Amino acid sequence: MAHFTTDENAQYFACGYSCDHAVFLQLKGEAFFITDARYTLEARANIKNAEVIEASDLWRAVVEKIPSSLKELYFDPAQVSVQAYRHLQEALPNLKLVGDPDHHRKQRIVKTPEQVALLKKAQELNRGAFDAFAKYLHTADTPSEHFLQFKVKEFLTHSGEFDLSFEPIVAVNANAAKPHALPSKDPLKEGDLLLVDVGLKYERYCADRTRTAQFNKGFGFSKEQRFKDQELQKIYAVVQKAQEYTIENLRAGMTGKEIDSLARGVIEKAGYGAYFAHSTGHGIGLDIHELPFISQRSQTIIEEGMVFSIEPGIYIPGKYGVRIEDLVVVQGSRAVVL
Amino acid sequence: MAHFTTDENAQYFACGYSCDHAVFLQLKGEAFFITDARYTLEARANIKNAEVIEASDLWRAVVEKIPSSLKELYFDPAQVSVQAYRHLQEALPNLKLVGDPDHHRKQRIVKTPEQVALLKKAQELNRGAFDAFAKYLHTADTPSEHFLQFKVKEFLTHSGEFDLSFEPIVAVNANAAKPHALPSKDPLKEGDLLLVDVGLKYERYCADRTRTAQFNKGFGFSKEQRFKDQELQKIYAVVQKAQEYTIENLRAGMTGKEIDSLARGVIEKAGYGAYFAHSTGHGIGLDIHELPFISQRSQTIIEEGMVFSIEPGIYIPGKYGVRIEDLVVVQGSRAVVL
Repeated sequence: MAHFTTDENAQYFACGYSCDHAVFLQLKGEAFFITDARYTLEARANIKNAEVIEASDLWRAVVEKIPSSLKELYFDPAQVSVQAYRHLQEALPNLKLVGDPDHHRKQRIVKTPEQVALLKKAQELNRGAFDAFAKYLHTADTPSEHFLQFKVKEFLTHSGEFDLSFEPIVAVNANAAKPHALPSKDPLKEGDLLLVDVGLKYERYCADRTRTAQFNKGFGFSKEQRFKDQELQKIYAVVQKAQEYTIENLRAGMTGKEIDSLARGVIEKAGYGAYFAHSTGHGIGLDIHELPFISQRSQTIIEEGMVFSIEPGIYIPGKYGVRIEDLVVVQGSRAVVL
Repeated sequence: MAHFTTDENAQYFACGYSCDHAVFLQLKGEAFFITDARYTLEARANIKNAEVIEASDLWRAVVEKIPSSLKELYFDPAQVSVQAYRHLQEALPNLKLVGDPDHHRKQRIVKTPEQVALLKKAQELNRGAFDAFAKYLHTADTPSEHFLQFKVKEFLTHSGEFDLSFEPIVAVNANAAKPHALPSKDPLKEGDLLLVDVGLKYERYCADRTRTAQFNKGFGFSKEQRFKDQELQKIYAVVQKAQEYTIENLRAGMTGKEIDSLARGVIEKAGYGAYFAHSTGHGIGLDIHELPFISQRSQTIIEEGMVFSIEPGIYIPGKYGVRIEDLVVVQGSRAVVL
């Protein structure tokens, strides 16, 4: 079926190249990558299965490539602007533009073994960055949360070699309970709770991992943590149990909603249901958030080869937040941690 | 006139707060900032002239707030997705949704003295980062272009204190001729051409500055440069003349196109017209690129209080590129460099 996209990850998936000013157009038996003079050399050197067209007006070139015999052209309505849509519709009044939510993401929901290997490699590098960051923290001179949010990028990117999957989260104590806290300038102290949620990209595939730790002399980002505060230790144990229970018990054939309720059930039973306000996980690949969603509303049937996060959390406003996150791939009907 | 936006800078301009999951809705005499539970506390603490509404379904809440008497609702069609548009149009079939290109940016095209002061401060800090980067380069041990693109962020952000206006460009020799080169891992050598195009944000206002320099013992990012290569020295002099001539001769009342042709004329007269493939400048403010555009197609009349870049360049493929960029504000009918 004919479709088009301006989304960079959808372009890369379709033809092995992308840039921030291009339209990828798939027609019957032929595909075009339409971009301007800044990108055509690089595009021609890297593209697969598409012809590169140089144009100063991208949408006019798209219109020229569409044969009058074409009946329907699919697109993702969340990723196309009203401006682009109107331009196409006015130039081609007889063409039916079909807004198909997640049109391109649906094609990526099941990962190939090669894609799983890239995600696994990304997460390995990400774990290495956690270890390097912990080592740095053992020698750092009372850094602020604010500085640590900057400094962690050095370890994640390997001083610029890799891109970030998303803006890193390094949160201390009460800030770990806020999803979008402004980082504080207070120095990190012995006994502080430290939540680190970060990811890097390897060959464009995203890693994502969260650990919550107590900062002290021997500290590290393993899942085994001892907090002085007894309520916090209890909460940590509940989150850990919810995360591990979900990973052990999820199966291919369940819906996203059923997997979500594995984690939610553990937390609700412990009496903290009201403090777990987000979903249990999200698909990951070229986009940091893609299909399938592991949420209370997700009717998606989970299949072999899907990759997603499992990341329950409990957040006590004004005190602290705990979240533990790993990525899993479904293999042999079960979750295998990447 | 009633309007809505999901763009963060348009939101911030309208009500002093923004987040990545919100709709700002301006009606007659009242305004709403509609967001989800993650943001409402922070929104209420920071917002001016708008009521914060908490909603899990943003567009449903927007529909509920729109009175049936409203005839027209304005939006920027480049910043609204087909999905959001269809949602509104289906829920409110009698409302005329008016796609007005640059609707929100037009409101910001002339800067107040306070906004000019913020842009000036941002550019001062940016110049300081150039100086700190030059100082670092005097002591650095043969860093690669690749590493420098990472390292420059330390100086720009003051180790995390400021955000970046855009992903920094640090390009050496032939890579300076490519607008989007992949950075090389070769070490920087004595005599190399170094093009640095970077900016930081101060209280959300963007800085932007480019210098081209020859790297050697006494080097710095001043405009006065001596290149060993005679053709390069000639090209540098043409770009410098084009930039300074434009700044000296532009006047309020000219169109963007007329200002563009001041720079383009100098470069064409020197025989390098074919090697200056971009526009002379762009407006800057909350967005790194906003109105007015200083391009061959811009019919915008330049007025007092507008702020934009003047950044001609000459690019010889496979050899080198030269660009010099400063920001100016129009005051007393003339350009004053920020």
